[in-house]
Amino acid sequence: MGATLDLASYLVAARRDAIPADVAHEAHRALLNYVGCAIGGSLEPAVELALRALAPFSGTRSAVVLGRAERLDPLHAALMNGISSHVHDYDDTTPKNYIHPTSPVASALLAYASDNPVAGSEFLLAFILGFEAESRVGNAVYPAHYDAGWHITGTAGVFGAAAAVGRLLRLPVQNMVWALGLAATQAAGLREMFGSMGKAFHPGRSAQNGYVAALLAREGFTSGEHGIEGPRGFAPVQAASYDLSKVSDKLGVDFDLRENTYKPFPCGIVIHPTIDACIQIARAHAIKADEITAVRLRVAPLVLDLCNKKDISRGLEGKFSVYHAAAIGLVRGKAGLSEFTDETVNDPQVRAVRERVSATADPGLPEDAVRVEVELSRGGRISQRVDHAIGNLARPMSDRDLEEKFRDQAARVLPAHQVTDLIALCWRAGDLSDMRELIDAAVPRS
Amino acid sequence: MGATLDLASYLVAARRDAIPADVAHEAHRALLNYVGCAIGGSLEPAVELALRALAPFSGTRSAVVLGRAERLDPLHAALMNGISSHVHDYDDTTPKNYIHPTSPVASALLAYASDNPVAGSEFLLAFILGFEAESRVGNAVYPAHYDAGWHITGTAGVFGAAAAVGRLLRLPVQNMVWALGLAATQAAGLREMFGSMGKAFHPGRSAQNGYVAALLAREGFTSGEHGIEGPRGFAPVQAASYDLSKVSDKLGVDFDLRENTYKPFPCGIVIHPTIDACIQIARAHAIKADEITAVRLRVAPLVLDLCNKKDISRGLEGKFSVYHAAAIGLVRGKAGLSEFTDETVNDPQVRAVRERVSATADPGLPEDAVRVEVELSRGGRISQRVDHAIGNLARPMSDRDLEEKFRDQAARVLPAHQVTDLIALCWRAGDLSDMRELIDAAVPRS
Repeated sequence: MGATLDLASYLVAARRDAIPADVAHEAHRALLNYVGCAIGGSLEPAVELALRALAPFSGTRSAVVLGRAERLDPLHAALMNGISSHVHDYDDTTPKNYIHPTSPVASALLAYASDNPVAGSEFLLAFILGFEAESRVGNAVYPAHYDAGWHITGTAGVFGAAAAVGRLLRLPVQNMVWALGLAATQAAGLREMFGSMGKAFHPGRSAQNGYVAALLAREGFTSGEHGIEGPRGFAPVQAASYDLSKVSDKLGVDFDLRENTYKPFPCGIVIHPTIDACIQIARAHAIKADEITAVRLRVAPLVLDLCNKKDISRGLEGKFSVYHAAAIGLVRGKAGLSEFTDETVNDPQVRAVRERVSATADPGLPEDAVRVEVELSRGGRISQRVDHAIGNLARPMSDRDLEEKFRDQAARVLPAHQVTDLIALCWRAGDLSDMRELIDAAVPRS
Repeated sequence: MGATLDLASYLVAARRDAIPADVAHEAHRALLNYVGCAIGGSLEPAVELALRALAPFSGTRSAVVLGRAERLDPLHAALMNGISSHVHDYDDTTPKNYIHPTSPVASALLAYASDNPVAGSEFLLAFILGFEAESRVGNAVYPAHYDAGWHITGTAGVFGAAAAVGRLLRLPVQNMVWALGLAATQAAGLREMFGSMGKAFHPGRSAQNGYVAALLAREGFTSGEHGIEGPRGFAPVQAASYDLSKVSDKLGVDFDLRENTYKPFPCGIVIHPTIDACIQIARAHAIKADEITAVRLRVAPLVLDLCNKKDISRGLEGKFSVYHAAAIGLVRGKAGLSEFTDETVNDPQVRAVRERVSATADPGLPEDAVRVEVELSRGGRISQRVDHAIGNLARPMSDRDLEEKFRDQAARVLPAHQVTDLIALCWRAGDLSDMRELIDAAVPRS
């Protein structure tokens, strides 16, 4: 069989009782982290502007937009959930393929489940399967695909959304093949958008487009039969080299959810080691910003490929600046949402330190490591090495850490007691008789 | 300046009185051909299924779907117009980049103009500019982009739709740059879909997505500033080699509309020479199907790259089979819509001849040429060469030919007098005070 048919067959046949307990728990962690990110991002300008542009085109307003009072048709709700959950670059990452995996899948699923009765157990299974489809398609084309300039969260994400919604729609195998094919032919998203609202548009659009793919396929709208592996299909066209066995091998045995990570900082993950190291310096040494005469970073080459902007003026740009990362770690000793606002990026102290940071690519360093050297005007140097940044698979965030992160984000939008209830609902999502109990708790009560 | 800014600046500044008369006439020809194709395709299963899947999600039903009684919100109408106008593979082609250029642009524009008052002169200018944006972006990446497996009508089309709608929205330059950037990051469509409904989905989706890009950009939703030429932008990511000067050079002087062609046959254009030659044989010689013992074709290599399917059972597959092309030319002596139905593809006589066709790639032959040799059971051989197929730039269809093609298609859906009126409205589109006069005449009257 081909990769598309292999994957479709698995997605249709997979049973809930074949999901290992650790995978189910990780799905709950991913959901908790996602809902917090979506609520935390729901008031951002990218969401406001997208709503202003597109809400006038909404169909029947039957679906929740997480964190907001407005309701939209589920396709537009999927888009908005995808934008809000990724806009802070605070959502999860699978390090082996750099996908932010939950946003495209959960954004579509929660929009669907807001509009249709879906039991928590069904929802969780569809989520686990969609995550798996997305991550495996990504694995097959990584790293050539990403290196070429594709934002893999957008391109792989649409497969995940199609698979997940397709599963809830109970598509037969042939229709699931078409859903994956219609996903393949919508796979898009360029890294040129990094540092603009276009980046968060990608998971939103992939959620919406994957949902559309599943709806079309259900009615018998056909696609090519080999959307992933055909000679003019996704993998050959969008990757200079690829390995299709990574789609098909050990389906139902290996679960990529086990390799999911959650971000302690709302910015590009490759600058997390720098933040981590600089926060450690700030906590261990009483240094003032104006004492810092130079900051020298040694980083993995990819860091400069992605995050080499120093002359910046917007919060969004700060999320992709290794220089800003070092500056906030040293000056603020933390890197929460408020360290990536326009205000902080233009803060004179932060700016002054940022301008003194230099970075060198070291091919010998892995992407989760950094070497930092701070030179002080009073004389002397402080060195700090990080081999595995916090949030990394080797140093995962605990369930409690995730709850704290959730509170920090959701508290911007919802009252504290509602946040507490919502956290509890996320942990027991798999037992809910109707996911709307959770979804309806994720919006401000009028 | 970069290609994106060059193009955006031109799109914003271009004036109607700077459009040469021949270009304006060609725009009317393109519109006439497009409206006929959209009406002719409007009852096809691909449209029916897409409506069944997506009409339930429509917003306010303020826009016409050409050829149909249903109305939808303009974004969904753009999608449906794009599907119907391309589903027969009967729409126009710019031979130098293989784009089917009018569908993505006009599908978006007519949906917009159905929902908003737009004078014909404004509409025509927006169409000419959108066509030009699309074709120039395509020129920059052709042929590497197409050869890699991209369906360039989908990928370049989204730029055209964004440019055209952006112009009607009177976007300033910065917002037009973002519209083009948001188009770039949605550029999608794989040739793996050829022979399925997925192919017609591409111009539809590019129309809808370009429209969305313009709406978002109007509100200030940002994209990267260099969506076309940036190092992770459309051209570098989606083409192994490209020439950005083809976007910027002679803007406002050269118009690709002058190089537009219209299809006499509703199928892949690279098999038109074969059909043309075989029809000429059928007309010149009284041969019966069962006399044909072998048909040998020599074709350009691209023909076999695109249309090498012999064992087929569906009409859609016939549109991409050079073997079917030869068979219908010889057996039927024509190649209209009825030669690409499931019925004809499975017709025993057609099938028998198709199975006797062989094709050889000849790198010395251009794509608009063919050499055909038919071997007969009664002895003897008939040879036919075509150097430029009918419909080619060197042998263009006349205005009268286009009207006849329109009638053939529209008569399937509308009464004859309405067809006559609609043809007249297309010819004077540029003078209409409101394009809804034309648009409302393109649907069945209740």
